[in-house]
Amino acid sequence: MKIISTMSLKPEQLDQAKAVRSDLNIEVKKQFTECDAQVEGLLTYGWDVTEQTLELYPNLKWIQAMAAGVDQLPLHAFASKGILLTNVRGAHSIQMSEHVIWCILNLLRQGKTVMYQQEQKVWSAKLKIDEMYGKTVCIVGAGTIGAAVAEKCHAFGMTVWGISQSGKSHLGFDRVAKLEDSEAFLKESDIVVALLPLTSQTKHFFNAERFNQMKDGVYFINVARGSVVDEEALSEALQTGKVQGAALDVFVTEPLPETSPFWSMDQVFLTPHIAGRSPQYTQRMFEVFLKNIKEYPNTSAMINAINLENGY
Amino acid sequence: MKIISTMSLKPEQLDQAKAVRSDLNIEVKKQFTECDAQVEGLLTYGWDVTEQTLELYPNLKWIQAMAAGVDQLPLHAFASKGILLTNVRGAHSIQMSEHVIWCILNLLRQGKTVMYQQEQKVWSAKLKIDEMYGKTVCIVGAGTIGAAVAEKCHAFGMTVWGISQSGKSHLGFDRVAKLEDSEAFLKESDIVVALLPLTSQTKHFFNAERFNQMKDGVYFINVARGSVVDEEALSEALQTGKVQGAALDVFVTEPLPETSPFWSMDQVFLTPHIAGRSPQYTQRMFEVFLKNIKEYPNTSAMINAINLENGY
Repeated sequence: MKIISTMSLKPEQLDQAKAVRSDLNIEVKKQFTECDAQVEGLLTYGWDVTEQTLELYPNLKWIQAMAAGVDQLPLHAFASKGILLTNVRGAHSIQMSEHVIWCILNLLRQGKTVMYQQEQKVWSAKLKIDEMYGKTVCIVGAGTIGAAVAEKCHAFGMTVWGISQSGKSHLGFDRVAKLEDSEAFLKESDIVVALLPLTSQTKHFFNAERFNQMKDGVYFINVARGSVVDEEALSEALQTGKVQGAALDVFVTEPLPETSPFWSMDQVFLTPHIAGRSPQYTQRMFEVFLKNIKEYPNTSAMINAINLENGY
Repeated sequence: MKIISTMSLKPEQLDQAKAVRSDLNIEVKKQFTECDAQVEGLLTYGWDVTEQTLELYPNLKWIQAMAAGVDQLPLHAFASKGILLTNVRGAHSIQMSEHVIWCILNLLRQGKTVMYQQEQKVWSAKLKIDEMYGKTVCIVGAGTIGAAVAEKCHAFGMTVWGISQSGKSHLGFDRVAKLEDSEAFLKESDIVVALLPLTSQTKHFFNAERFNQMKDGVYFINVARGSVVDEEALSEALQTGKVQGAALDVFVTEPLPETSPFWSMDQVFLTPHIAGRSPQYTQRMFEVFLKNIKEYPNTSAMINAINLENGY
């Protein structure tokens, strides 16, 4: 089977892939440009596949995206052509859950103030230090990454609620509600973590109304996608103090424009879309690909298939 | 029984104490100044009790220190007069273990660089982000706080080693060694956390020789006492890169003098002795005192007695 990859692969990764499947022919390219009727699969970070890309490969059956969020891909075109899309959910759980705990601790322990003090050589213990223990966190998006966050939050003695599409109870969460029943959870939570996929249903899920439903002085963390938040509403909620502090890793426009008010807010801990970063992430993602090429074309045994209707 | 407290107490705390013990007479004062032969107990943060203090209270039997470290108290004088000293170990486990995890994440995830970037409105994902998962942490001082750190480190998938006086195996640690056998653990650990009590034996435990035993590029965290570290040796190890980064909450001299090199080292995350801070800490400490006044003078039922010989 022939696969084109726009992800650069090390010689040992090519060897690993061929060891898993002897009939594999992987061509590594910078871009998807030339027509090729032999190509059955694409390996991509996910930003470079458009409807036009599909025209190049009339026999394309499968796309492996090396990302968790696939909102930028033409899902309807895949559906109409019967193309299977798989992502690498699970491969981000470790580093993203560590990032979320880091964000919570930075917000509760006044990380930015502490570091400003060091810069200015100021020794002052007049800091409002809070702790995770006993607090309630609501993880909006109770998927694989959410469950990893939940497990760690439990180790800190937190109460952990989850919100998901189905509302089904899920290991590691004390309670789970459906997306449309989020209000009761939002209004009782000390910390709200956005981890939901970006779909037409979740765009601007965190709007002025939802921020208003939250507890006064809530902390908000977004490690999902910028557009699940109405940034203007969040900025307003931060200015009024409704949201006491926020840790933001993703934004509607990235890189974040210099004009964004978030840069200079003391109560915002801003990171440049790094929550999924890890020295191990390429290998973790690649292992999903290895598992899937081994099973292809037996799609029922392939992992991390995206429901093209729901978008995740 | 009569107790003098130099810790300020809220009316509800005085009520709680009297509810536990009806014959209790607590006098709250700013300082220990006047002679009083009726006084059997002292309640103190621990900084204001000297050998002279003991002269004021000829019938003193017990001192409750509202601190974990009691290195600043005249332990030999207590021993010679048969005075029981109790501390509040355990009351700091929650907040201190949260602080240590925060330090680890700040060091591994380049917290200071991330925050400098935000200050300068620089969006750059060229950060060397590392993760806790799979790393080995060595907790030097495998007591109550150390065990709480160990439990949380395990939740992050770390290997957790402990070093203690006795070297006895201890719940939550994968392996425990004696203080004098620390070398084997130090040289294999990615992160070393100092949590040991300051005694004549542990002063400058972390000296040039011990830093040299550690892995190249180790991370070092001190939340114990400044003097368990030879600060000059640490500064040197940070400059050569032997120690890649350090999170320091305690120092030989506090407040840390402006001339200290630690203030301006990018690889040092410096906090002003706040690891034990929590909105709940006064109440948590007070509950130790409540338990002890209830049992007094049955010293065998009182908790957190200090071995005056060992100093912890």
